[in-house]
Amino acid sequence: MLEEHRLIRALLRQPVDRTPVWIMRQAGRYLPEYREIRRQAKDFLTLCKTPELATQVTLQPLKRYPLDAAIIFSDILTIPDAFQMGLSFEAKEGPCFQKPIICREDIQRLPMLDPEIDLRYVMDAIRMTKQALNQQVPLIGFAGSPWTIATYMIEGGSSKNFSKIKKWMYHDPEGLHQLLAHLAVTITHYCNAQIQAGADVMMIFDTWGGVLSQPDYLAFSLQYMEAILKNCVRFYKGRTIPIILFTKNSEPYLQAMACSGCDALGLDWTTSLDKARKSIGHQVAIQGNLDPAVLYSNPVRIRKEVEKVLQQYGAGTGHIFNLGHGIFPDIDPGHVEVMIEAVHAMSPQYHVV
Amino acid sequence: MLEEHRLIRALLRQPVDRTPVWIMRQAGRYLPEYREIRRQAKDFLTLCKTPELATQVTLQPLKRYPLDAAIIFSDILTIPDAFQMGLSFEAKEGPCFQKPIICREDIQRLPMLDPEIDLRYVMDAIRMTKQALNQQVPLIGFAGSPWTIATYMIEGGSSKNFSKIKKWMYHDPEGLHQLLAHLAVTITHYCNAQIQAGADVMMIFDTWGGVLSQPDYLAFSLQYMEAILKNCVRFYKGRTIPIILFTKNSEPYLQAMACSGCDALGLDWTTSLDKARKSIGHQVAIQGNLDPAVLYSNPVRIRKEVEKVLQQYGAGTGHIFNLGHGIFPDIDPGHVEVMIEAVHAMSPQYHVV
Repeated sequence: MLEEHRLIRALLRQPVDRTPVWIMRQAGRYLPEYREIRRQAKDFLTLCKTPELATQVTLQPLKRYPLDAAIIFSDILTIPDAFQMGLSFEAKEGPCFQKPIICREDIQRLPMLDPEIDLRYVMDAIRMTKQALNQQVPLIGFAGSPWTIATYMIEGGSSKNFSKIKKWMYHDPEGLHQLLAHLAVTITHYCNAQIQAGADVMMIFDTWGGVLSQPDYLAFSLQYMEAILKNCVRFYKGRTIPIILFTKNSEPYLQAMACSGCDALGLDWTTSLDKARKSIGHQVAIQGNLDPAVLYSNPVRIRKEVEKVLQQYGAGTGHIFNLGHGIFPDIDPGHVEVMIEAVHAMSPQYHVV
Repeated sequence: MLEEHRLIRALLRQPVDRTPVWIMRQAGRYLPEYREIRRQAKDFLTLCKTPELATQVTLQPLKRYPLDAAIIFSDILTIPDAFQMGLSFEAKEGPCFQKPIICREDIQRLPMLDPEIDLRYVMDAIRMTKQALNQQVPLIGFAGSPWTIATYMIEGGSSKNFSKIKKWMYHDPEGLHQLLAHLAVTITHYCNAQIQAGADVMMIFDTWGGVLSQPDYLAFSLQYMEAILKNCVRFYKGRTIPIILFTKNSEPYLQAMACSGCDALGLDWTTSLDKARKSIGHQVAIQGNLDPAVLYSNPVRIRKEVEKVLQQYGAGTGHIFNLGHGIFPDIDPGHVEVMIEAVHAMSPQYHVV
C-alpha cells in the first residue's frame, strides 16, 4: 500500500521506521546510463517529450539505489514550451526562448492549455512509470511556480539580476499579475492532470522566489502558489496527495511558506534544519538539505555530513532527506550510494518511539 | 572635518542630522556622462586602470546628486588581474580569466603583491579623487572578499552553481585554505594601501558568500574577512576608518557577521531591516537596502518605498541608506534624484533627539 510508504508518511508527519531519502535530479547526467540514453535522443527536450525514454530515465536511479521515491523526468519549462514560445536548450547558456513575453498583448495571447492534449507526453510518461514502478515507491510529479516560470518567459532564459521581470513588476504590476494568474491556473490544471495520471506527491519548484523582497515575495510568488495549493486535488482515489514547496534562499520567507497550505518545505543548504524547525515548528514536514557539493568529498566525510543533517533535524518524523539542490553532473555515482546507505544506517535511531 | 561627516558618524553609530545616502555602482552605465567616457577608453579594464578617467568617473554622480559619499571607481577583480591571470570582460558573459587556478601549484605560484606597485593605478585614482573632493564627502575604497575573489579565480569567471570551487572545498580543503589565506593577506595590504592613499571608509564585498552552508561560510568566507578586519588599519592620521561588510543573501549569517569586527553590514533587499535589527541589535550599523528594481517605478512609488526602508530601520542612528545591490544600467537618472531627495526629506524625523 503506497499510502503506507515512509515517504508519504513522513510528508504527512506520521511515524516512520527511518528517514526517507531521494535526490533532486536523481535521473540525470551523473549516471552513465542516463548519458547513454541522452545520446540516443536528438536533444534534451526530445528526451522529455518521448514518454518511453522519459520513463526509462526516470527508473534508472531506482535500479541502482534503494531510493524512497521516483520523480518523473521532465522540466519546469514544459508549460511555456506548450505556449509555443520557441524553447531550446543551448549547450552553455541553458534554456532560451525565441519569443519571450515583451508586452501585455503577449500575455493576453497566451492560450489556455489542456494538459491531457498539450502536455500529454508528461501524463503518458507518468502512466508508464507508474505501471513499471508497480506500487513499490511513490512517484513525484512536479511543476515550476508561476513566478519562476514567468522569469524565464520574460527574461527569455536564465538571468543574473532578473532586471526585465523586476522592471515589469515595478512598472506594470497589473500586467505581471495577469501573467502570474494565468500561470497559476495553468499550473493547477497541470498538477491535477499529473495527479490523475498517477503522481503520488507533487512538488512545486519556486527556484527564483528568493530574489524578491519579502512583500514582493508574498505578492508575486507565494500568493500564486497558495492559489495552486488551494485548487489542487489533495485527496485522490482514497489517498492524500502531499505537496512540497521548494524555494532557493528561502530563509527570509520560511514562516510565510509554512502557512501556505503545503505539506512540506524543501530547503537548500544555506538554512540549517534546526534553525528552520525552530522558526516554523512542526506545522509542515521539511525536505533537505545536504549541500550537493558534499558528494565531491570522500565516503568518510559524506557519512559525517549526512549525520549532521540528521542530527540537525533531530528526533521525530517529518524529515525527508535530500540534497539542498539538484545533484551536480560530475558526481561519482558511488558517492551517491554512500550517502543513501548512510541515511539508511543512521536514521532509524531518530525514529525510535 | 570629515570625521564629522554624517556618513562616518552613522557608520560609527553616532547621532546624525539625517540618514546618509549613497548608491552601490553610483558611477556607472545609467549615467550618460559615464557612457561617454566609457566610449573613450578601450575597454572597462582600461577605464579602471587610467587614474585620470577613474577619478573623473568617480566624481560624476557627485556632480549630479547630493550624495554623502564617493566610492572609487574600480573592480573587485583588480587583485587577480594583478596576479596576471589574463582577465578580460566579455560583452555578454562578464569577467573571464584565461589562466584560472586549476591545481595547488597554481596557488603556490601566486605572487605577493605590493599594492603601491602592482595596483598603483588604484592608489593614484584614490589620491586624485581625494584632492578633487576637497574633504567635502568621504571617499569609500573597496575590495572583494577572499572567498568571492577565489570563486572567480577558480571558476574562471562568473558561475551559476560554483561547482568547481565547491568541489575543491570538499576535495582538497587545505589547498583552498592556502588560496584564501594568501588572498586575505593580499587584500589586507590592498585595503591598507587604499587607506593610506586616502580612503576614509572601506567596504568588503563578499558577493558570493551566500552560496555556502553556515559552517562552510564561517570556515571559508567569514574567517578570512575577520583576518582582514583584524589586520586592517582602523585608525589613521587621527581618524577612525569604518569598514562595511556586504554579503548577498546574508540572512542566515547575520549574527556571525555582526560579531566579525566590522563596523557596518550591507544588506540586500531580501532581509527586512527591522528583522535584521531584531536579530543583531545595535552592535553594528546597517547599510541598505532598497531593491534596485524599485527605481524602475514612478516617483510616487519610489518615495513610498524609501519611506518603508526608513520606517523599517526606525529611529536612531546607525543606518546608511543604499540600494540592496548595484544600480541597474537602464535606470532613469531622474529616478535616482527622486530617491535621494526622499531620503533627505523624510529621514530627519528619525534622528530627532
